[in-house]
Amino acid sequence: MSWQRVTVIGVGLIGGSLALALRRAGSGAEIVGCGRSAASLRRAAGLGVVDRWTTDVAEAVSGADLVVLGVPLGAVRETLESLRGALAPGAVVTDVGSAKGCVLADAEAVFGAVPPWLVPGHPIAGNERSGVEAASAELFRDRRVILTPAEHTAPQAVARVRALWEEVAGAQVLCTDAAHHDQVLAATSHLPHMLAFGLVDTLARWEGVEEIFAYAAGGFRDFTRIASSDPVMWRDICLANREALLAALHRYRADLEDLTALVEAGDASGLELLFRNAKETRDRYLPLFER
Amino acid sequence: MSWQRVTVIGVGLIGGSLALALRRAGSGAEIVGCGRSAASLRRAAGLGVVDRWTTDVAEAVSGADLVVLGVPLGAVRETLESLRGALAPGAVVTDVGSAKGCVLADAEAVFGAVPPWLVPGHPIAGNERSGVEAASAELFRDRRVILTPAEHTAPQAVARVRALWEEVAGAQVLCTDAAHHDQVLAATSHLPHMLAFGLVDTLARWEGVEEIFAYAAGGFRDFTRIASSDPVMWRDICLANREALLAALHRYRADLEDLTALVEAGDASGLELLFRNAKETRDRYLPLFER
Repeated sequence: MSWQRVTVIGVGLIGGSLALALRRAGSGAEIVGCGRSAASLRRAAGLGVVDRWTTDVAEAVSGADLVVLGVPLGAVRETLESLRGALAPGAVVTDVGSAKGCVLADAEAVFGAVPPWLVPGHPIAGNERSGVEAASAELFRDRRVILTPAEHTAPQAVARVRALWEEVAGAQVLCTDAAHHDQVLAATSHLPHMLAFGLVDTLARWEGVEEIFAYAAGGFRDFTRIASSDPVMWRDICLANREALLAALHRYRADLEDLTALVEAGDASGLELLFRNAKETRDRYLPLFER
Repeated sequence: MSWQRVTVIGVGLIGGSLALALRRAGSGAEIVGCGRSAASLRRAAGLGVVDRWTTDVAEAVSGADLVVLGVPLGAVRETLESLRGALAPGAVVTDVGSAKGCVLADAEAVFGAVPPWLVPGHPIAGNERSGVEAASAELFRDRRVILTPAEHTAPQAVARVRALWEEVAGAQVLCTDAAHHDQVLAATSHLPHMLAFGLVDTLARWEGVEEIFAYAAGGFRDFTRIASSDPVMWRDICLANREALLAALHRYRADLEDLTALVEAGDASGLELLFRNAKETRDRYLPLFER
């Protein structure tokens, strides 16, 4: 399976890494970069991540057989509007957003129905860094990518996007429906990000913040690593996956209230049981995400 | 500065690592292990961490010029009771607990007043592992150790414990008072542990927990690493630092309520501002705890 021309709209950590993976695979595809910031696209070209670039979406997707949307979720709808009517026949479009129901809703709003050539996707990769400078052809190696095709998504389009992730990027593809994806990711990713951002925000307003951080150790560094993630990307994820995230937040806050009550009551056996359950659960499932 | 005989009561990750650091420093001190579990002490001797061992505290501390309490905070009081009257003249006692006010209170309860030879200490080190098998002579290298001497603690005792941590273990010693230590650690360590234990506990009771963890990525692994910590140790820390931890929990829960309200309202600029503040704060202070 090969590509003639791949257009990456939003050449950041994820879009840039996929472009580098295409290069490393020797796909021979011309890689066209697109985005809002000419300065950032110029850097991407300078780093050899894209062959050429333009800030005009219609021009960028012209003649491409694959279009990858690497933009924040809040920019998906206007990007779809910009590329409407400019796609080549047979072109496949995929995205990399951390929520999927909103992408289907955006597509429906722009096209009247979810087009058969749109394959929503989400690589469970990335880290707290952002920007094309952090891109790496190895970013997706052995990671999971979740595709959430809709009812009328073309099976050939899904097959082509699957091949992109598996054969080019070295990832492992799973398919599920968008609503289910959004619920699971709210639990495993969006909620933890809220807790980490929230913790650093709380401590930042604490008296003696300098000393607080001076006393912090490795556990704190790891716990808050995700609080160094891109604020705009996470703002958009919160808005895009609002319902599922709220459900997770409510659930967590109720449980944290129970935990606080155990501390308040000095309930030694209740606390030990909770900690033991958590430790045993994490240790049991660790092999699943120790990668 | 040298030691003739060092007794470590509680030869786990921290106590065992300090024993190994003493060996590596070629101090020549005889190292006596003590604890409740003969099996675990036998393993410590087998690993060469201690020269000899006994489960009898009075026997263990006899003739020692340094006694290190490596027991969970909940066992400090009974350990102090067991060693009362058995210490050699001039012996110095220190501990490694994650809360310090409770150690002073225990000492006061056992001895009527905090004895001048007791130097409460807390190495900001360790990890989610436990037990003597995880011990390493390098565990404290370049880490901070906080000593919280009381009003009548002997300056020579503090100097000897400082030398132990700095010259033998390669750590950096800071002194502060116990109440201040407990407030700062509640914020940077005890609260994050509650949030991580709480998250895994919440997810463990989620429907489809297997799939939840299968979709988790590196961010989740790092965020929840501290939820694999020792349940008994953390139960004791919660009880020992209850007041300061409750204050931190209440503060955090109020802030998380505000964050939830931003998500509920779909407040894009409010969310972005919060995330940006958190990211900038973390990135600014990162050099302080990137060690």
